[in-house]
Amino acid sequence: MQNFSYYNPTRILFGQGQIAAIAGQIPAGAKVLVTYGGGSIKKNGVYDQVKAALKDHPWLEFGGIEPNPRYETLMRAVALVKSEGVDFLLAVGGGSVADGTKFIAAAARFDGAEPWDILAKHAEVKSAVPLGVVLTLPATGSESNTFAVISRESTGDKLAFGSEHCYPQFAVLDPQTTFSLPPRQVANGIVDAFVHTMEQYMTYPAEAPLQDRLAESILKTLIEVGPQTLASPQDYAARASQVWSATLALNGLIACGVPQDWATHMIGHEITAEFGLDHAQTLAVVLPGLWRNRRVEKHAKLLQYAERIWGIHDGSEEERIEKAIVATEAFFESLGVHTHLGLYGVKDAALAPQKIAARLEAHGFTKLGEHGSVMPAVVREILASRL
Amino acid sequence: MQNFSYYNPTRILFGQGQIAAIAGQIPAGAKVLVTYGGGSIKKNGVYDQVKAALKDHPWLEFGGIEPNPRYETLMRAVALVKSEGVDFLLAVGGGSVADGTKFIAAAARFDGAEPWDILAKHAEVKSAVPLGVVLTLPATGSESNTFAVISRESTGDKLAFGSEHCYPQFAVLDPQTTFSLPPRQVANGIVDAFVHTMEQYMTYPAEAPLQDRLAESILKTLIEVGPQTLASPQDYAARASQVWSATLALNGLIACGVPQDWATHMIGHEITAEFGLDHAQTLAVVLPGLWRNRRVEKHAKLLQYAERIWGIHDGSEEERIEKAIVATEAFFESLGVHTHLGLYGVKDAALAPQKIAARLEAHGFTKLGEHGSVMPAVVREILASRL
Repeated sequence: MQNFSYYNPTRILFGQGQIAAIAGQIPAGAKVLVTYGGGSIKKNGVYDQVKAALKDHPWLEFGGIEPNPRYETLMRAVALVKSEGVDFLLAVGGGSVADGTKFIAAAARFDGAEPWDILAKHAEVKSAVPLGVVLTLPATGSESNTFAVISRESTGDKLAFGSEHCYPQFAVLDPQTTFSLPPRQVANGIVDAFVHTMEQYMTYPAEAPLQDRLAESILKTLIEVGPQTLASPQDYAARASQVWSATLALNGLIACGVPQDWATHMIGHEITAEFGLDHAQTLAVVLPGLWRNRRVEKHAKLLQYAERIWGIHDGSEEERIEKAIVATEAFFESLGVHTHLGLYGVKDAALAPQKIAARLEAHGFTKLGEHGSVMPAVVREILASRL
Repeated sequence: MQNFSYYNPTRILFGQGQIAAIAGQIPAGAKVLVTYGGGSIKKNGVYDQVKAALKDHPWLEFGGIEPNPRYETLMRAVALVKSEGVDFLLAVGGGSVADGTKFIAAAARFDGAEPWDILAKHAEVKSAVPLGVVLTLPATGSESNTFAVISRESTGDKLAFGSEHCYPQFAVLDPQTTFSLPPRQVANGIVDAFVHTMEQYMTYPAEAPLQDRLAESILKTLIEVGPQTLASPQDYAARASQVWSATLALNGLIACGVPQDWATHMIGHEITAEFGLDHAQTLAVVLPGLWRNRRVEKHAKLLQYAERIWGIHDGSEEERIEKAIVATEAFFESLGVHTHLGLYGVKDAALAPQKIAARLEAHGFTKLGEHGSVMPAVVREILASRL
């Protein structure tokens, strides 16, 4: 087991009716900025619940944070935080709203010239406006981690940052708030949580049997409840397990003491930036190809995955690994998330291998994966197999 | 899944050499009281590592905290904290030292007449001296939870309390610091962590498949690495997995959204107070008897446990359950932790059923377990089967 440091102070308020509890979590008298996305919270009752919970706090709102939240949009919120003297940020939405709000929190207190440097130059985040999250889309884990991914419209960049100052102080996870999500977003959330788990699991053995089993617990649960919750969106129990799985997939726990990959995510971010696919769609495209390409490096863990998750015991080692990859592709496809670029009707998909590899090079990401072996030539190979 | 609130802000610093990191976790200039037990830390090098790490802090020490830490002893430390103006407590030891130090932290800031009321009358803990832990015995999980169990010599009581103010700010878990532990303490730690997990798992199905699997992950890992680490105390990987399993068994995570039992612990505390058995020894005695007695209530989970943990698929449901209970007893015995009172050479063991039930009644614990069905008559039945 590798040495590690683990710290996660986000208070999770999980279950039906928990939005009412937020008033007790925000300091009395604090001026709150409620941030949200496209306005679905005004249709599904969440906005009204938040409004009722904040009845004793002064508050204002900032809507319109996009999926793949944009720097340009977020900087308008930063100006509002400063001009209005906002003390607390309350993100109400999915991972994009949470990510965007973390950036607003950091940028509003940033003492450098240009907050974009937090993303582009890893400028240090020394403080942030305190924030909380009311989660309405189980997927990214952003509600209880330090990370955010932000896009810049003017340059087409999509970059990440993380800071302990950006840990949400609390996260409300009421599965009922997610019942009205479109199936595509639910399916994307399942794939996203699944691949988050994989980025921390599918590497090489690290004498960490507990961590392996914790990751496998999340994988098995997603495989079990994913189809259930997609078929029966109002099934509270299934959705609750999906929500909790997505949070635990990326709250730092399963990363403790083990190597991590993240090549699939890095390649996927560039595909979203270049071709506009949903984040989870890019992961479903890349992951199986990356596994086939890196099957020597990942041999032992792919075999373990085949056996423990899919119960595959027959055939040669190579056959078992291939069966597990095929099973994973079938799982994604069963959720309606396609695993090849061609199935998304992408224009000029044939150019993807060159374009995406070039984008990664331009961003300096030339040695991805747990061994640093996913270089531009490997990215081209992987994507050539996913057209 | 039940509603829940989860909050655990303890920073885990895990691995070789991490004691050196504590200096950065304690405010500069804070006056530190280092608390410890019987002095083993002065023989195994841990004291010297702590001393080196604290070279820039003013600090003093308080040794002699007992296994089953005593109120009378701890109140002497409270007096020291007050007279010396201590700002930070650093517990160096196992669960007893951590528990005792949490009580010192709360009692030193208690504004009532008698700090014993925190235990006996559930008096509110409104603040506590900040504390950190350097763990040298993996067992109780106390290093990253709010709980403490304290004994009072004058009355023979053993009572628990918990407060968020008593969360350690950090916990150093260096597996190497545990290499010199006597085998009995290592074995006790494995059993303790195993039964902690069971108190949160072996109840009834609660539509919480992820939580079930997380608990099962800890159980399987303990069954796998427990015998390894007992046989090869210097095997870093095995000990590291034991340490991390013990922490995760009782840091709040696997309790999220599920019913809990804790009857075994409540009965066990009284056995320690009455007969002087080690805590883990009492758990190994009680748990199998409690399961047999409550096998109707726990039927579904006992079956699940039999299948998933021990791979028992053959026989009637009752036979499978009995096999799993026997396997659990055999596991404890294989570690050298006996599962019947008679094997501990206890004087007047035959009186245990009456005496322990009477003690529980005197403390008001007359409806234990996840259904409140473990009443004094049931306790007598359970213990009569464990003589």
